Amino acid sequence: MPAGELLYPSQQHPPPADLSVEEDEAILWNQIKGEAKRDAEAEPALASYLYSTILSHSSLERSLSFHLGNKLCSSTLLSTLLYDLFLNTFASDPCLCAAAVADLRAARTRDPACVSFSHCLLNYKGFLACQAHRVAHKLWTQSRRPLALALHSRVSDVFAVDIHPAAKIGKGILFDHATGVVIGETAVIGNNVSILHHVTLGGTGKASGDRHPKIGDGVLIGAGATILGNVKIGDGAKIGAGSVVLIDVPPRTTAVGNPARLVGGKEKPAEHEECPGESMDHTSFISEWSDYII
Amino acid sequence: MPAGELLYPSQQHPPPADLSVEEDEAILWNQIKGEAKRDAEAEPALASYLYSTILSHSSLERSLSFHLGNKLCSSTLLSTLLYDLFLNTFASDPCLCAAAVADLRAARTRDPACVSFSHCLLNYKGFLACQAHRVAHKLWTQSRRPLALALHSRVSDVFAVDIHPAAKIGKGILFDHATGVVIGETAVIGNNVSILHHVTLGGTGKASGDRHPKIGDGVLIGAGATILGNVKIGDGAKIGAGSVVLIDVPPRTTAVGNPARLVGGKEKPAEHEECPGESMDHTSFISEWSDYII
Amino acid sequence: MPAGELLYPSQQHPPPADLSVEEDEAILWNQIKGEAKRDAEAEPALASYLYSTILSHSSLERSLSFHLGNKLCSSTLLSTLLYDLFLNTFASDPCLCAAAVADLRAARTRDPACVSFSHCLLNYKGFLACQAHRVAHKLWTQSRRPLALALHSRVSDVFAVDIHPAAKIGKGILFDHATGVVIGETAVIGNNVSILHHVTLGGTGKASGDRHPKIGDGVLIGAGATILGNVKIGDGAKIGAGSVVLIDVPPRTTAVGNPARLVGGKEKPAEHEECPGESMDHTSFISEWSDYII
Amino acid sequence: MPAGELLYPSQQHPPPADLSVEEDEAILWNQIKGEAKRDAEAEPALASYLYSTILSHSSLERSLSFHLGNKLCSSTLLSTLLYDLFLNTFASDPCLCAAAVADLRAARTRDPACVSFSHCLLNYKGFLACQAHRVAHKLWTQSRRPLALALHSRVSDVFAVDIHPAAKIGKGILFDHATGVVIGETAVIGNNVSILHHVTLGGTGKASGDRHPKIGDGVLIGAGATILGNVKIGDGAKIGAGSVVLIDVPPRTTAVGNPARLVGGKEKPAEHEECPGESMDHTSFISEWSDYII
Amino acid sequence: MPAGELLYPSQQHPPPADLSVEEDEAILWNQIKGEAKRDAEAEPALASYLYSTILSHSSLERSLSFHLGNKLCSSTLLSTLLYDLFLNTFASDPCLCAAAVADLRAARTRDPACVSFSHCLLNYKGFLACQAHRVAHKLWTQSRRPLALALHSRVSDVFAVDIHPAAKIGKGILFDHATGVVIGETAVIGNNVSILHHVTLGGTGKASGDRHPKIGDGVLIGAGATILGNVKIGDGAKIGAGSVVLIDVPPRTTAVGNPARLVGGKEKPAEHEECPGESMDHTSFISEWSDYII
Amino acid sequence: MPAGELLYPSQQHPPPADLSVEEDEAILWNQIKGEAKRDAEAEPALASYLYSTILSHSSLERSLSFHLGNKLCSSTLLSTLLYDLFLNTFASDPCLCAAAVADLRAARTRDPACVSFSHCLLNYKGFLACQAHRVAHKLWTQSRRPLALALHSRVSDVFAVDIHPAAKIGKGILFDHATGVVIGETAVIGNNVSILHHVTLGGTGKASGDRHPKIGDGVLIGAGATILGNVKIGDGAKIGAGSVVLIDVPPRTTAVGNPARLVGGKEKPAEHEECPGESMDHTSFISEWSDYII
Repeated sequence: MPAGELLYPSQQHPPPADLSVEEDEAILWNQIKGEAKRDAEAEPALASYLYSTILSHSSLERSLSFHLGNKLCSSTLLSTLLYDLFLNTFASDPCLCAAAVADLRAARTRDPACVSFSHCLLNYKGFLACQAHRVAHKLWTQSRRPLALALHSRVSDVFAVDIHPAAKIGKGILFDHATGVVIGETAVIGNNVSILHHVTLGGTGKASGDRHPKIGDGVLIGAGATILGNVKIGDGAKIGAGSVVLIDVPPRTTAVGNPARLVGGKEKPAEHEECPGESMDHTSFISEWSDYII
Repeated sequence: MPAGELLYPSQQHPPPADLSVEEDEAILWNQIKGEAKRDAEAEPALASYLYSTILSHSSLERSLSFHLGNKLCSSTLLSTLLYDLFLNTFASDPCLCAAAVADLRAARTRDPACVSFSHCLLNYKGFLACQAHRVAHKLWTQSRRPLALALHSRVSDVFAVDIHPAAKIGKGILFDHATGVVIGETAVIGNNVSILHHVTLGGTGKASGDRHPKIGDGVLIGAGATILGNVKIGDGAKIGAGSVVLIDVPPRTTAVGNPARLVGGKEKPAEHEECPGESMDHTSFISEWSDYII
Repeated sequence: MPAGELLYPSQQHPPPADLSVEEDEAILWNQIKGEAKRDAEAEPALASYLYSTILSHSSLERSLSFHLGNKLCSSTLLSTLLYDLFLNTFASDPCLCAAAVADLRAARTRDPACVSFSHCLLNYKGFLACQAHRVAHKLWTQSRRPLALALHSRVSDVFAVDIHPAAKIGKGILFDHATGVVIGETAVIGNNVSILHHVTLGGTGKASGDRHPKIGDGVLIGAGATILGNVKIGDGAKIGAGSVVLIDVPPRTTAVGNPARLVGGKEKPAEHEECPGESMDHTSFISEWSDYII
Repeated sequence: MPAGELLYPSQQHPPPADLSVEEDEAILWNQIKGEAKRDAEAEPALASYLYSTILSHSSLERSLSFHLGNKLCSSTLLSTLLYDLFLNTFASDPCLCAAAVADLRAARTRDPACVSFSHCLLNYKGFLACQAHRVAHKLWTQSRRPLALALHSRVSDVFAVDIHPAAKIGKGILFDHATGVVIGETAVIGNNVSILHHVTLGGTGKASGDRHPKIGDGVLIGAGATILGNVKIGDGAKIGAGSVVLIDVPPRTTAVGNPARLVGGKEKPAEHEECPGESMDHTSFISEWSDYII
Repeated sequence: MPAGELLYPSQQHPPPADLSVEEDEAILWNQIKGEAKRDAEAEPALASYLYSTILSHSSLERSLSFHLGNKLCSSTLLSTLLYDLFLNTFASDPCLCAAAVADLRAARTRDPACVSFSHCLLNYKGFLACQAHRVAHKLWTQSRRPLALALHSRVSDVFAVDIHPAAKIGKGILFDHATGVVIGETAVIGNNVSILHHVTLGGTGKASGDRHPKIGDGVLIGAGATILGNVKIGDGAKIGAGSVVLIDVPPRTTAVGNPARLVGGKEKPAEHEECPGESMDHTSFISEWSDYII
Repeated sequence: MPAGELLYPSQQHPPPADLSVEEDEAILWNQIKGEAKRDAEAEPALASYLYSTILSHSSLERSLSFHLGNKLCSSTLLSTLLYDLFLNTFASDPCLCAAAVADLRAARTRDPACVSFSHCLLNYKGFLACQAHRVAHKLWTQSRRPLALALHSRVSDVFAVDIHPAAKIGKGILFDHATGVVIGETAVIGNNVSILHHVTLGGTGKASGDRHPKIGDGVLIGAGATILGNVKIGDGAKIGAGSVVLIDVPPRTTAVGNPARLVGGKEKPAEHEECPGESMDHTSFISEWSDYII
């Protein structure tokens, strides 16, 4: 049993059914405040941090705006400016906060090292980079491109996560560890996808146009995988760690290796469970693939 | 057509022929100021940033010195100290600024996501890390090694780009995305090279001496490629993403895989176009290499 | 001969025999102060930095606490708070400082680019991240988990090194370059291990429990290697750069490739020298492995 | 003719009659943006500052909130927190912004050294301290006293202007130079008052209760004047520089000296113009008072 | 009744008799933490500040060291350095903390605007400047003069309170408002003294040697009073606001005016209560002095 | 004998005769570096500060530019911008540095509490404010008024010294303690003047035009003196502390009191030594003036 379970046993990770988005967010936000309150009491050295980032705020989007503004600011892009920008953008589109809620639940459910929602909100660079990306993407779609690119650059500097503001990303996304993730301009990512660190969704050269991967729903992409070009990774596919993928991968199949091949072969690829992006099963294909090698 | 083309349609990416280095720099600097001026007018939230980093400066090297000084400073290495150091080093060697100009043109020409020169100057961590490296390298050659290493360390912290100050790097270089690039002490990189993120030009052990790769002109090195040891990558060679290269690669050939092999085989390697470092063609070898696999 | 040798010719890298831990630390600290003093005199621009980080402090742990406090602070986690935390934790457990001493000696001995102990202390993000990890780990074992995780997050942001605070790490460790290293919650690393950048010691899914690699003493793990699952890498094993390892590797053997295989084959793996983690020999297996390929 | 007249000749200092408060504020805000725009064009070194503090904002209260947040923040009271607090308080009470408008007009009309509205908005510590006081006073009336006192303390540190948050201050106030002004808890200040630097409106001991001066409309208080106790300074009175006033001063009379006496004597005090707080006539009483002395 | 009484009705301002210094400090520190806890609960916006400055610390001297370190730091004198300096100096001499306790009680007892001990600890620049002075004075007596003078300079910049580190100051001191106080090198101040803002205890020229005032126990010095030269202000004397005093003032008499004269005349000075420094009665002499004037 | 004499016995305060301005500056700069070197060796805690502000710089103007840039910067006016501005302005007019040299010698000679030149350079807010004023004045004369006023405002915030950038100030000026000094737009100050804290050279109302005092050479103005209007204070005059002066004071006479009168009377003013601004004799007139009063 992971350590965190002991700390916050009462929480329910999946949102109860039949809730409106607002109710769902309110329940989660209350849980986050409860966690932060408990941690602040147990650890006075951290209380100031928990109050400034969570407990002094009236909503998840205000907390996120504050936290991102302070994380991403620099001497030439002030925290007040960024805070304002995040606040206003979150206010302009409720989907942004709903996606953050889904991402928090994704991390809490899928990552056994995630001990609480507040842990993810405060500390997961993948979560934070993704929320900053959503705001940058919103700015991009509003033709505020220089501002979107400045934000993109700050996220790349601060979190070492480089997501082009034009990239389209679904919700329920887990960027686990996240360092070194690179996602190109015309990439598209579905819902409930899990992407490990050092993953590249890259282009194929200097030609402009649609040139980056399209990732289906429920896909799991292992650490260090490189997917290049306008290829399609089907719903529920699994890409092994360190793989280099240059062509399409069918739904619910597993591709591994450099260059990647389908487990089970191209003709008879082995199908697996529906949603590896949620089950996070990285290695069940080991027996077929690598065991005989070492 | 990439978005950026619409924004700055009038620019000429390649420098007009028959210009002196000074004229070339002046033309580029004017274009950068024009871009920043337009963006500042369109986006008041960004205007302060654009004025402080670009529009208040009288030359590219002053702008760069300011921007790098503010990006790389810390509470123990003040921005004023770094600014001074950059200004003085740029002033001491005009080649540094000429190389920056060539790098800006390289990014603008080769990277379809680069919408303007100012975009690169402000936001590309690969560009900024490379310019900071050139200054650190200059300090290294002047036997100011502790200072060069302190600068090296700041670049590695801030940009996650780790280039040893002794490494020799040509001009017209594109470090695309750049996160995770590691280049060792005795590495040498030619002109017009393009290097993607997570690329390692590494050593071979604890023996000192000449132990890092030598990269020819016009080489393209794909994301995540690892090249180890004092090996020679010939002019115009192409290294596939995720490849692990431990021995020499002949000019104008393509090496892919882990361990890397030559496309077309060792005996009859397939030659390709002259300068993949400029054409940025990452994946034209797919049909030969990986298509049959998945 | 590497450049650094000329600068500090008199030092002895291995600690003289028959010294107590305190004497050993005192000797090393004196050497570090000597190096810093020399550098401050030679380079006035760096003197302020050297005085604030090294020369104004009375011991290695105070210097480290100050340096880490200033590197890892943010606008919401103040340097004074972190400084206090580091000071108190170092004071509570002398093993932490002894491990730092062993790590400094490891870097100085194994990395030919490491020109002095002070170079490592000031500039090596791998060294600094490891010391911060040891403190976070101590907090973790004291059930101060939210604080440990906050520190973990700062290290991941600032150094792009992501070591879960529960991971157990021995001493005499060299994290060389270090960018992108990810080490999971139940990973264990022995003594005298060398780990290059972009190395992942990852888990195998969303199941909690013991799910990360166990690395023996004296192991060398090359750049970009990915080791997944609760596998055992035997003492003195060597993992090639870019390898993806999913199952156990016997002691004193070499595993390379994606998926990794043993050099010499599974039945007759080639044994090598005792401690590649110390010899840092990355590439002696090239002739067997990759030469015939390109 | 003062220098400023040449710079901004077109402005009208008094607000045109028959304007609503909102129209008046809009006209002033437009004028401020016009001034800032002109200055930014003439002085690129200042443009970044002018954009961040004025030109990037959509209203006077947003600009003020930003400017005060950045001026008054500290490492333990973050600019984002203060910015939020100012924004929300200005939004909660339109009188706060109307008073700021009246104060700006007061400075521009009465102080010949005030060359533009933006000059006052950006640079006058008396203006800025007064606006911060109004917000602190609002918090005080909402029983948010610890927060009001924290703000009070920051204003006293940053501007050396110490106004207790309980003090009641009218509008159209000019605190000229302002350094060293001290105003106690139960002080009340009317409208259209001008107060020079080093002025004290102080109490009379450790008894609590109503113990500070009551200043009528249109009063002028010269530099260094000290008024102590629950005394009444009548409408249109004038207090000479350096005076020490311990008892009531009748309307439209002048008190000078230490201890203060009425010019013309207690029985026949010389009456003067209606509103010295607006005319700023400090010294017309010289011929009666001090000429014969030196 | 002052506002603060309602907030913290249970406190006892004077320390209970028969307590050791340590017990007294512990009681006060507990009361301060209680106040801060209550305020943090009532005002989430301030909670982070209260936790970082008070509630996360284990003792008054640690809290003070943290708060002063953060208030007085600059980009060239880091908060960590100052924090260390304060911590070590407080630890070296328990009298420093005992004097801080006495000063806190003095402010709480004498100043009706002081609503709580934590209010004074956090917000009173006079209190904070005085504690920083005590540390600077300690350094001065240890012949660490350049450091003492650097601290002196920071206090003068940040609080506009200029106390030479050689000046000797008793305990139970209230510097009320404090802005503009200047106290020279050879000044001596007794116990239980109250000094208002803008008070000068100055020298008499460029001759060195003992050249500043000596202030007895229980003295009250009104706002803006200037006392120059090696003169003696007797125990329990009272100096009126705005007075200029150039010669000795006998015990328990009142001097007022510029130049100062004794109330009641030089031959028959009016004696008053024992300790105006504690009673803070600024103006009871009004009827004798100034009433007849206006 | 003042403390400082023992510390730096070898220095010569007055510049040796027959030196060029450059030689004089070079001698002083060497002495300052010698002092800082000695202090850095004796006090490691201060060494970082001394290296960054003095020892790492090649000239007095570079050191001053760095120190002022760091003291006066804010989150919206960056240190790099101010550093640049100071550097360029000092470079444009050698008189600025010559005046700084004269001011340093003035402080060292006249103020017995000034223990070294470096003490003044680092710590005297009056000295620093005056040098920043000279730069602001230069900008003012170049019609860069908004920038001059922004600098003026920063000096008023940081040092509580408010000198209008149009005011003309000679050289060899000592602003002793300096807090609260206010000098208006059309004020003129001669050479070798000493001005204590809280001194006002103020205007006379809202009329523009020439409305501030003209201070002759060698004048001494005591603490808290207020001089208002376009009055002339003759060469070598002395203004007593706390005086309020509204009309001309003849050369070499002393004015005291509120309102000020001439010592010796208007008809037979007592003449005194030539240059009280240099002798700093504040109180020799006591016997005539105030002794008989108390």
